[in-house]
Amino acid sequence: MHQEFVLGRFGLVSGLDLPDAKLAYKTYGELNEARDNCILLPSYYTGTHASYEPWIGPGRMLDPERWFIVAVNMFGNGLSTSPSYASPETRGAAFPDVDIADNVIAQHRLLTALGVRHIRMVAGWSMGALQAYEWAVRYPEMVSGILPVAGAARCSPHNFVFLESVKAALTTDQAYDGGRYSSPPVSGLRAFGTVYAGWAYSQEFFRDEVYRELGYRSVEHVLDEWAKDHEQMDANNLLTVLGAWQRADVGTPTRGGFEAALGQIGARCIVMPGTTDLYFPAADSRIEAGLVPGAQFRPLESNLGHVAGRPGIRAAETDQIGDAMRQLLDD
Amino acid sequence: MHQEFVLGRFGLVSGLDLPDAKLAYKTYGELNEARDNCILLPSYYTGTHASYEPWIGPGRMLDPERWFIVAVNMFGNGLSTSPSYASPETRGAAFPDVDIADNVIAQHRLLTALGVRHIRMVAGWSMGALQAYEWAVRYPEMVSGILPVAGAARCSPHNFVFLESVKAALTTDQAYDGGRYSSPPVSGLRAFGTVYAGWAYSQEFFRDEVYRELGYRSVEHVLDEWAKDHEQMDANNLLTVLGAWQRADVGTPTRGGFEAALGQIGARCIVMPGTTDLYFPAADSRIEAGLVPGAQFRPLESNLGHVAGRPGIRAAETDQIGDAMRQLLDD
Repeated sequence: MHQEFVLGRFGLVSGLDLPDAKLAYKTYGELNEARDNCILLPSYYTGTHASYEPWIGPGRMLDPERWFIVAVNMFGNGLSTSPSYASPETRGAAFPDVDIADNVIAQHRLLTALGVRHIRMVAGWSMGALQAYEWAVRYPEMVSGILPVAGAARCSPHNFVFLESVKAALTTDQAYDGGRYSSPPVSGLRAFGTVYAGWAYSQEFFRDEVYRELGYRSVEHVLDEWAKDHEQMDANNLLTVLGAWQRADVGTPTRGGFEAALGQIGARCIVMPGTTDLYFPAADSRIEAGLVPGAQFRPLESNLGHVAGRPGIRAAETDQIGDAMRQLLDD
Repeated sequence: MHQEFVLGRFGLVSGLDLPDAKLAYKTYGELNEARDNCILLPSYYTGTHASYEPWIGPGRMLDPERWFIVAVNMFGNGLSTSPSYASPETRGAAFPDVDIADNVIAQHRLLTALGVRHIRMVAGWSMGALQAYEWAVRYPEMVSGILPVAGAARCSPHNFVFLESVKAALTTDQAYDGGRYSSPPVSGLRAFGTVYAGWAYSQEFFRDEVYRELGYRSVEHVLDEWAKDHEQMDANNLLTVLGAWQRADVGTPTRGGFEAALGQIGARCIVMPGTTDLYFPAADSRIEAGLVPGAQFRPLESNLGHVAGRPGIRAAETDQIGDAMRQLLDD
């Protein structure tokens, strides 16, 4: 169960708008009297608010007895306004480009409406990290900490190429028909999942059969599950969020570019890349951490590749993320 | 210009056969009286015999004044017997699976017919490396040195997944039609190239704009060229050779498995992985080098990713390969 925040006509940074925008979200715990115990968790690619639940609960890293936790869904993920869930004039292929900045602006309205005065931490995995950086740059007075896990402050050129590749696999299916499909492009969706599977993990994840720890019996089983999972997804939703990812960059010209934008961040920041991540590589995160004043570069040691940061993936990874959160929140 | 060696009906390790098998090859230099100055260069994926020419010539690493160099085309590459170049009953989708071992057995017949008694070195990049290992295990008395560059002795599970992904991108095009296409599956071929582009290079190749050194103006230019290049290729040829790659493994049961097979190698061996290769990672090569008696593990330092070993790519890489060859050949 989740709630919907109705934004109405919502102007996008592109100049277009969403005529009937809604943000789907869920809260855990209560806002305190000072209205400053908020923790924000923006969703990641193909995830929802619910994906963060392994981090939330008594005895877990985010205890609702202490924190007012808001988990929010990105536009395009199927729960917030999306090609599959929009007013008729923006449905399907007609859905406009929505950017990371649009998501963060809408989230700011939501939190303001909820009465939040201050956010103690924006934490997110993968695309959640893209949003955490945007929060710190756009609303510096409101955010005192960010924890980008296995993410970045922009889409790197190699990451862009990887995303072009999954997009190419999907759109090669003639049934996709420029987004005007009446029945799903099943073959393209399966290919999307297959191509993605090679990038989601590390080489050693396959070599050392680490997949068995995640419940996969074999390499073929990994591939089958990825193909099957993506068969269920909406192609236009996938490509809408993918576009936001590809265009992501906190370093807009009005901010003076990338280095200047990161240099403006006043929030405490722990940058936590996965050590074997193939598309948000630790080398890139090290550069970004060097640009944020006072940021700590703290790699998430893992052989899982990009999925190292996915909530609930494995205790070894979860513990490292929890330690970083405690450090940010206790300071 | 190249020559053809006619094998006639050629039995494959699968039990099937090629009714009219031909190996396309080219020789450089002359066989000496002792018939022991041969260097063999097996082709790589989407390459031909001619791809090795940057390594060959007076003043280059392989001088035809001294060596009898044989550059040979893999089955399926379009010049040796291939889906696009076969007798009618095995053309196109009817082409049987051809393995690395089949290529090496056919190459052995060719060299024997050319009068070669001894091979001083089998050197190869990428899939050429797969063939070099197979040569050392299958014909130990005939080979005194191998130089696998940016390759392996088998297809690793992660490499298998990467290959499934490019295959999925291609076969998602309905025009592919299980290999029975009458006009080329252009969209699938382009997607194949797009997906491949993300794997061929390293993350820093894109981040640090190293692509400019290879003549690309932008990331988009890299992607466009990869899509365009693959448009020209034959889909069944691509998938035939890809299958040989996926099944590659010197560690057959009759050899006692992988470790035992590598342990049998008597040839001098320099294992040369690219330090930033994403699908033949150096970590795997280190393990393989540890299994070959006396092998030297000698990484090819490069920010180019897998393409670091491609003949003629850049002087810095070519020089390192040349040094390794000199060491192998002078010992």
